[in-house]
Amino acid sequence: MQTVSSNISHGGVQGVYTHPSSTCQCEMKFSVFVPPQAETQPCPVLYYLSGLTCTHANVTEKGEFRAAAAKHGIIIVCPDTSPRGDEVADEDVYFFGSGAGFYVDATEEPFAANYQMYSYVSKELPALIGEHFNADMSRQSIFGHSMGGHGALTIALKNANQYKSVSAFAPICNPSAVEWGQNAFTKYLGDDQSGWRTYDTVALIEDGHTVPAILVDQGTSDEFLESGLKPDTLKNAVAGTDIDLTLNMQEGYDHSYYFISSFMADHIAWHAERLG
Amino acid sequence: MQTVSSNISHGGVQGVYTHPSSTCQCEMKFSVFVPPQAETQPCPVLYYLSGLTCTHANVTEKGEFRAAAAKHGIIIVCPDTSPRGDEVADEDVYFFGSGAGFYVDATEEPFAANYQMYSYVSKELPALIGEHFNADMSRQSIFGHSMGGHGALTIALKNANQYKSVSAFAPICNPSAVEWGQNAFTKYLGDDQSGWRTYDTVALIEDGHTVPAILVDQGTSDEFLESGLKPDTLKNAVAGTDIDLTLNMQEGYDHSYYFISSFMADHIAWHAERLG
Repeated sequence: MQTVSSNISHGGVQGVYTHPSSTCQCEMKFSVFVPPQAETQPCPVLYYLSGLTCTHANVTEKGEFRAAAAKHGIIIVCPDTSPRGDEVADEDVYFFGSGAGFYVDATEEPFAANYQMYSYVSKELPALIGEHFNADMSRQSIFGHSMGGHGALTIALKNANQYKSVSAFAPICNPSAVEWGQNAFTKYLGDDQSGWRTYDTVALIEDGHTVPAILVDQGTSDEFLESGLKPDTLKNAVAGTDIDLTLNMQEGYDHSYYFISSFMADHIAWHAERLG
Repeated sequence: MQTVSSNISHGGVQGVYTHPSSTCQCEMKFSVFVPPQAETQPCPVLYYLSGLTCTHANVTEKGEFRAAAAKHGIIIVCPDTSPRGDEVADEDVYFFGSGAGFYVDATEEPFAANYQMYSYVSKELPALIGEHFNADMSRQSIFGHSMGGHGALTIALKNANQYKSVSAFAPICNPSAVEWGQNAFTKYLGDDQSGWRTYDTVALIEDGHTVPAILVDQGTSDEFLESGLKPDTLKNAVAGTDIDLTLNMQEGYDHSYYFISSFMADHIAWHAERLG
C-alpha cells in the first residue's frame, strides 16, 4: 500500500492510498479518514460506496463526513467505483465501465478479468484496512449513494453478519428494472437474468436475504427518481418482512453532493448507534 | 443577475450567479448560500474571500460551511478571486492575474481596467446582495483564506463600520514583505510602496486602522507559513493596540481545504455571535 496524500483534518488524518489489487488485477485507489480516537483505541469502520462517474475523490472532497466521523470516532473508507487503467476494458459512456463497476463480480469477457468490485469491496479492501489501520474489524458498516447505495444494500444483504448496519442516499433499488442496471448487468453478468438477482436489492429481499434495518434518504426533485432509483420498489419489497426501513423523502433535494452532504451527519450518527 | 445553478442543501439554497460587473468591466461569478431562516426574516451576510488560484467553486464545494450557516441563519457569499475573460489582462502564473486579484483596486495598466477587486467586494457585490436576497445589510461580516484572508482583514480594517467582524484562515498578513505580495502590488499598484500600505494588514494597523477583534487560525505545517503568511507580523502589529487578536496555531494542519473546513464551523459561530 502506498500513500498518495495525507492531510490533517477535523483532528484526524485524511489519507489517499493505492495498492495493487489481486482481485481487480490493477492498481486501485481509495481514501481513508482516521478519526483522532484511533490514536488510542481501535475504531469501527464505515465504508462509503460512490455513484456513477465518481472516484474516491468526490465524496472525500464534497461529502462533509469528517466532522461527524471525528465526533463519533469512526474510520471512513471510500473506494473507487471500478477498476481503471490502460489494460482495463472500458466503454466511452458514463454508465458503464470505468466509474461504473456496479459492485458486481463480472462473469462476462472482457470485463471478468478486472471488474470484481463485489469481492474487492467486501473482501480484499476490508483485509487491507484491518492490516494497515487501527480498525476494529468486528464493527463494520456500509453506505453509499446511487449506484453506491445499490452496492451498499446488496453487499450488506448478502453479508449480514459482516456489517452492523447499512444505509443509502438515493440508491438504485431495483437495477434489473431500469436501463442503467439492465445495460450493466447484461454486459457484466450475461443475458441470463436469474444471475442478476443476487445483485439486486429488491430481488435479494424477495429471495429471503435480510438485515435488521435500512435507512434511506431520497430527494423528491432527484432527476433519476423514476428512471433509475425507484424507492417505491424497495418500500414494496420490505413490506411483510422484518426489515425496518426508514425511507425519508426529502422535499426539493436533487441527486448531487449538495443533497448527500446535507444528510451525511444523520447517516453517520445512525451507523454510530449501531456500531456501538 | 443570472442564475447558473441552484441546489437545495442543508435546508437552504446554494446558488451560483453571474452578473455584468460595472466595477470590473467583465462578467463576474459568485455563489450565495441562503439559509432556511431567510424564508421568514432578513438574515445577516458573511463574505468569504478565497485564495490564489480559486474561483467561487472551491470553497462552495469543499468549505463545509452550509451546516453551520444553516444553524446560525447566515447568508454566505463567495465571490471570485479576480476578473476573468478574453478581454482581461493576465499572466500565465498562479500568483498573479486571473485567480489572483489580491483584493486591490489596480492603478497600473493594463490591469487597472478590470482588476478592481477591492471596490467590487466592498461596494458592488454588497449592493447586489442587498437587492436580490433577503439580507439584513446592517449586519455584514467578512472572512477568507490566504490571499482571501488578506482581503478580508484589509477590507474590514478600512471599512470598520461596514463589518461587524472579521476572521481569517492562514492569511497573508504582511503582503508588502513577501514575494507573492511584492510581485502583485508592483504590477497592480506601481513601484511606489507608500501606495501599498493601504492594502497591507500590518501597515494598516500601524497606520491606526482598527477593528475590535480578529480571529485567525493557522496550521503549523502550512507550506507557506514563513514564505507568504507570516502570522508573527500580525501578532507584533496588534501589540499595544486595542485589537483583540485570537491567533490559533493549529498543530499539523496545512494550507488546504482539509484545514479550512476543520475550523469553518468555529469561524461561523464566532461571526454569528458578533452579527447578533
